[in-house]
Amino acid sequence: MTTCIFCEIVAGRSPASVVHEDADAIAFLDLYPIQEGHVLVIPKEHIRDLANCPPQLAGHLFAVAGELGRRLVRVIHAEGYNVWTANGRAAGQEVFHLHLHVLPRFAADAFGLRFPQSYPQQAARDVLDTLALRVTRDR
Amino acid sequence: MTTCIFCEIVAGRSPASVVHEDADAIAFLDLYPIQEGHVLVIPKEHIRDLANCPPQLAGHLFAVAGELGRRLVRVIHAEGYNVWTANGRAAGQEVFHLHLHVLPRFAADAFGLRFPQSYPQQAARDVLDTLALRVTRDR
Repeated sequence: MTTCIFCEIVAGRSPASVVHEDADAIAFLDLYPIQEGHVLVIPKEHIRDLANCPPQLAGHLFAVAGELGRRLVRVIHAEGYNVWTANGRAAGQEVFHLHLHVLPRFAADAFGLRFPQSYPQQAARDVLDTLALRVTRDR
Repeated sequence: MTTCIFCEIVAGRSPASVVHEDADAIAFLDLYPIQEGHVLVIPKEHIRDLANCPPQLAGHLFAVAGELGRRLVRVIHAEGYNVWTANGRAAGQEVFHLHLHVLPRFAADAFGLRFPQSYPQQAARDVLDTLALRVTRDR
């Protein structure tokens, strides 16, 4: 059993620059910021990822992320922000304690999304409709 | 006053391949998918961005996104997923009706984040603590 670095922060055994705390969530500045003001919002409970998080708690984390985004815009005069979360190693998750990234943005910054070469390409409606049916029926 | 393409979908005047609908939210497959199964979750009400969204509704949208991520993993056998939202043009927002992207991921895919050249670099604790104080005091 390895130690979870985020659980260590929740327990107060590791330092963190905290920007929000309530009964269920804590948010702190990322030690390796992608952008100035890069914040992580996590549940206090050790929950692996979004797929394992009760919907109400997930919603609370996102609402906290949104409020922190607003505050970061005011405090560091960012021009916008992203909220990002990764579920699973294939999605880029590295710490397996659910966390939402809040990333302040500036028009001239070097952060963003990396797209496949095929993008953008319009999908055929019948292909989308067939997939939508499979998702709604979950099979 | 230009027409909002997402409001047209909510009103049923534009086609969409819907994967979820409830009283407050609708989710459909993106017509220009970055990845197969790329879903957008939006509020039915025209709300510009996360900064203008009531926390409870924002939380609901994220919970829906999480549930759709789980379903997409099962249906298209994805290995993970991301949830992403952009607040403001500088953050990459192009349609100014709040939307959360759900992006199924595969280990070998070409999608991901583009980082600044300076990343990763550890921040100094005193710099983070000073910023955290400004964010918590919001000034």
